[in-house]
Amino acid sequence: MAFEAKKLINDPNNAVTEYIEGLMETYPGLQYLDGFPEVDYGLYVIWPFCPVHGVVFICSDASFSLTIGQVKVVLRADAAGGDYSKVAVISGGGSGHEPAQAGYVGEGMLTAAICGDIFASPPVDSILAGIRAVTGPMGCLLIVTNYTGDRLYFGLAAEQAKSEGYKVETVIVGDDCALPPRRGIVGRRGLAGTILVNKIAGAAAEAGLPLSDVAAEAKRASELVGTMGVALSVCTLPGQVTSDRLGPGKMELGLGIHGEPGAAVADFQPVDIIVSHVLKEILSTETGYVPIKRGNRVVVMVNGLGATPMMELMITCGKVVPRLQLEHGLAVDRVYTGSFMTSLDMSGFSITVMKSDQAILQRLDAPTKAPHWPVAVDGNRPPAKIPIPMPASRVTKSDESLSRPTQLTPEGHILEVAIEAAANAIINIKDDLNEWDGKVGDGDCGSTMHKGAMAVLEDMKKYYPLNDAAETINEIGLSIKRVMGGTSGIIYLIFCKAAYAQLKASAQVTAKEWLEALEAAIAAVSKYGGASAGYRTLLDALIPASEVLKERLNAGDDPSAAFALSSEAALAGAESTQHMQAQAGRSTYVSEEALATAPDPGAMAAASWYRAVALAVKDNCSAP
Amino acid sequence: MAFEAKKLINDPNNAVTEYIEGLMETYPGLQYLDGFPEVDYGLYVIWPFCPVHGVVFICSDASFSLTIGQVKVVLRADAAGGDYSKVAVISGGGSGHEPAQAGYVGEGMLTAAICGDIFASPPVDSILAGIRAVTGPMGCLLIVTNYTGDRLYFGLAAEQAKSEGYKVETVIVGDDCALPPRRGIVGRRGLAGTILVNKIAGAAAEAGLPLSDVAAEAKRASELVGTMGVALSVCTLPGQVTSDRLGPGKMELGLGIHGEPGAAVADFQPVDIIVSHVLKEILSTETGYVPIKRGNRVVVMVNGLGATPMMELMITCGKVVPRLQLEHGLAVDRVYTGSFMTSLDMSGFSITVMKSDQAILQRLDAPTKAPHWPVAVDGNRPPAKIPIPMPASRVTKSDESLSRPTQLTPEGHILEVAIEAAANAIINIKDDLNEWDGKVGDGDCGSTMHKGAMAVLEDMKKYYPLNDAAETINEIGLSIKRVMGGTSGIIYLIFCKAAYAQLKASAQVTAKEWLEALEAAIAAVSKYGGASAGYRTLLDALIPASEVLKERLNAGDDPSAAFALSSEAALAGAESTQHMQAQAGRSTYVSEEALATAPDPGAMAAASWYRAVALAVKDNCSAP
Repeated sequence: MAFEAKKLINDPNNAVTEYIEGLMETYPGLQYLDGFPEVDYGLYVIWPFCPVHGVVFICSDASFSLTIGQVKVVLRADAAGGDYSKVAVISGGGSGHEPAQAGYVGEGMLTAAICGDIFASPPVDSILAGIRAVTGPMGCLLIVTNYTGDRLYFGLAAEQAKSEGYKVETVIVGDDCALPPRRGIVGRRGLAGTILVNKIAGAAAEAGLPLSDVAAEAKRASELVGTMGVALSVCTLPGQVTSDRLGPGKMELGLGIHGEPGAAVADFQPVDIIVSHVLKEILSTETGYVPIKRGNRVVVMVNGLGATPMMELMITCGKVVPRLQLEHGLAVDRVYTGSFMTSLDMSGFSITVMKSDQAILQRLDAPTKAPHWPVAVDGNRPPAKIPIPMPASRVTKSDESLSRPTQLTPEGHILEVAIEAAANAIINIKDDLNEWDGKVGDGDCGSTMHKGAMAVLEDMKKYYPLNDAAETINEIGLSIKRVMGGTSGIIYLIFCKAAYAQLKASAQVTAKEWLEALEAAIAAVSKYGGASAGYRTLLDALIPASEVLKERLNAGDDPSAAFALSSEAALAGAESTQHMQAQAGRSTYVSEEALATAPDPGAMAAASWYRAVALAVKDNCSAP
Repeated sequence: MAFEAKKLINDPNNAVTEYIEGLMETYPGLQYLDGFPEVDYGLYVIWPFCPVHGVVFICSDASFSLTIGQVKVVLRADAAGGDYSKVAVISGGGSGHEPAQAGYVGEGMLTAAICGDIFASPPVDSILAGIRAVTGPMGCLLIVTNYTGDRLYFGLAAEQAKSEGYKVETVIVGDDCALPPRRGIVGRRGLAGTILVNKIAGAAAEAGLPLSDVAAEAKRASELVGTMGVALSVCTLPGQVTSDRLGPGKMELGLGIHGEPGAAVADFQPVDIIVSHVLKEILSTETGYVPIKRGNRVVVMVNGLGATPMMELMITCGKVVPRLQLEHGLAVDRVYTGSFMTSLDMSGFSITVMKSDQAILQRLDAPTKAPHWPVAVDGNRPPAKIPIPMPASRVTKSDESLSRPTQLTPEGHILEVAIEAAANAIINIKDDLNEWDGKVGDGDCGSTMHKGAMAVLEDMKKYYPLNDAAETINEIGLSIKRVMGGTSGIIYLIFCKAAYAQLKASAQVTAKEWLEALEAAIAAVSKYGGASAGYRTLLDALIPASEVLKERLNAGDDPSAAFALSSEAALAGAESTQHMQAQAGRSTYVSEEALATAPDPGAMAAASWYRAVALAVKDNCSAP
């Protein structure tokens, strides 16, 4: 099942340069050195999928070294020119680990990043070009990951730069805790801990410290940090086929970041268990890789390997911190969660633990303009959870206050009659609604509305506060919602809730307030449901009704006559939906021919209850 | 080939809560509401893999709604309590889109984010709890993505909050440009453009504007933005099997962010071509989705969908910006590249284009403490490329200056004799070196060293400036490097480079300076090569030699005698490697028994040339 990986690239050989071009488009504070160096040393190192953790050296021929020798150096736009007044901090290595290291170039972190090709050490001349571009009289610190190629090439560049008169110090970071100790110098690879070392050195340099002090802080940090990774999938180099080395249900522990196999393959486990194992390895007193003991303070980095979603990284982080605290007895000062040092499209994570103290925290918390250093991580932690606030209305109003009044006011009586008429209208039209819905939908509109009408009738007898129009409308919404599923239930709940809010704001409720409540309810349904007039919904009944009602009331008509007139507009509007195309809901997917066989059942239902209410009002009062 | 996806989770049903816990561990400025609301509306919406872009409504039964009803609200730790003095900006929706929206909570952006379950609208009570928790007298703005469920539930919560006395405004964002217009209200989904709207509203609120103005800015922004996505793989919900709907070599254009199929399936293409197509769709004058014309200014967001590595996003970005400028005639003010609104582990990207002006830029550039809003994006762009600086030494020294002196000084003569002796020693020992290397390595050490020795002899005759010891040593390094591949070539280059830098710093070169050069060379090889004494490398010859040389010189011995004595230490040291375990290089993987059959060839080679040099010096002078 090998197939070429789908990657967002054009030319696999040009991926790093095109990456840098995108970086430049995104971050105006960065620049890059362009072109070919004057002298091509023609030396490079590639880590293919080595069977062991060693490295394979390949010596270039002349033609290849010309391509590979292209300088790829990202630097601070404000530090180029050789007169930079602070210690320059330079890191780098093979590409494929984005955002490392170019994404960490910025005031307060790296001054320059030297980018090799994917998983290949940068050529010596690239490193030299970077040193020359940003190093001023204070000198530069090279922070190098512990791979033979990086060490030798950065080393050679450092020696060359020194012979040119530059002050250069080098710190090598090997934070890998996966392999047993004393397997030789290749044993401890440079992993995500390098990012923390870079930040500490960058902040020390930004503070104006001399080179020896910046180097000393970086060295100390490199000795306080340990990392171990877990891979759920292998990565695929651009232009290559995807490997199925790691099958379903397996993971690799103690991975390298160049696709080389991990220290062990194990069955995949819940993240709790993986985290527990990884932390034990990092903090093992047997290997003694990091000088961290119970009672110490630490910072921790949970790092995604390229294709791990933020949700999973955060879930992992949520397991790491309590374990460090409870199982290992450590105080956690800072937590960095994100994809900081990746392996192309590898899925998985690494955990980095660094012993912390005030000096370390000061450097990690110092501001930086590096685009990919995580923000909003510093500061002390308040309690994470807070209780859910109670609504004011619930606090002042107990449920017992809801009961049908023993004595109805005239308005309360009319309201009761109107609600009863509306509910009965829906009950009577049930079969018609189902029939129409059968032609344009799933055929249950009548049954659904019938449930709502029955619930309203039942609840009204029990506890509707009929003398309070606003609260009664609110309860109608809740009754409907209690029994009616789907969109129609929530649409009617929104309808009632909006009318309720409008009515509640009024001191008294006359025809004018009912009109305003109707308008507010229509506006809410239109806004949240997304439909307007002509969309073949209940609004095609209610909008014409509200318009006619407003017009007649403004003209000074008797309110109950105006109401009755508006209900004729509702019915006409509902019937007109038969010739409309659907613009909302499931009917959108029904053909025009089918739609023309029936009116919209939701609109017909709305017209029915509206007309029933209007007629009830007219029958029971001349001036409500 | 369906198999359960490997995900860093424990319980698929609890993924969102565990995500929030990790978020709390990482960002001390955030808090979350914990617990169950007083009233459970029991309403929710789930988008499974719908065959069309519509939604499926599922009404909960009581037991399920208890689980689903858990409040998941992330809010600013400093804004909780109901007395927040500015307009609260609240967004949210289904989870699975991390870092959206919880990662954008922070001063200057969101005040709270309401998290539903994965791809499910949050329950109304969650939204209400969030509104109540952070809304003060200035009111709140709800920014809602255009999905029926989100619209209805946020709408209902808004109406309920209004009836409780809160000032609430709602803006709905539907920025999708993938579907043809007039497919009804479900047509334009809310995608990554929502992030930009959130930032603009958050900055307006932070500036102290009243609710109506904040809502107006958000609404305007929502009308200026368009987005389209491309999926290279589908996403997998926690606990489900991975779908192979999208096979190798295919991509989906105009995807939704809930795993639903895109508007079209196409053959996978280089990113150049994909980008060109997507931009044309977004900016289409036929659909007229965004009011952007040639000559306008825009901001652009290149958004990863969850599993897309930063390298590929940046490469994509590097194609987007020139196309906007050159093909569409737009000025690009800001570029945001990263994974801002994802679909779990989906691979692919979306592009968002927003018309910009000074008002928009002011809001986008305003500072925020939201953890996942991208930093270092603002500001004007300097030229991205700068030329590679020339080294000072190359500028002042032309290649022609390198030539063998016609007249040698006495020191130059001794140097010539010594180099010749060293090279011949290596040439003579070639077969022995190969034999030893055959037992512990790949058997070519003698042949490789022989090449280097021949090159040194050849180059020396042509152009070594023998009267200048420092420059001559530098040239030896370059000769060796020119012909010797692998580690040994670069190790000797570093050796010579370090000695060169040391010698160059000295006014005259006596035995003391040669000792210092040797020590500097050893230190550099040890540091960058990573080996120390006892690692079975050339250092096991050179370190004892330098120690004896120093001791004898300090004791006042005749330099040439001291040198000769030190060369015996070199030989003894090299021979002692036969009983050492390898700690560096490929011999690390050779068994102890095999190693015991031969000395380290590199150490023997070093001892040989060192001894040859010492004897040549002794023969040619009594006081060099």
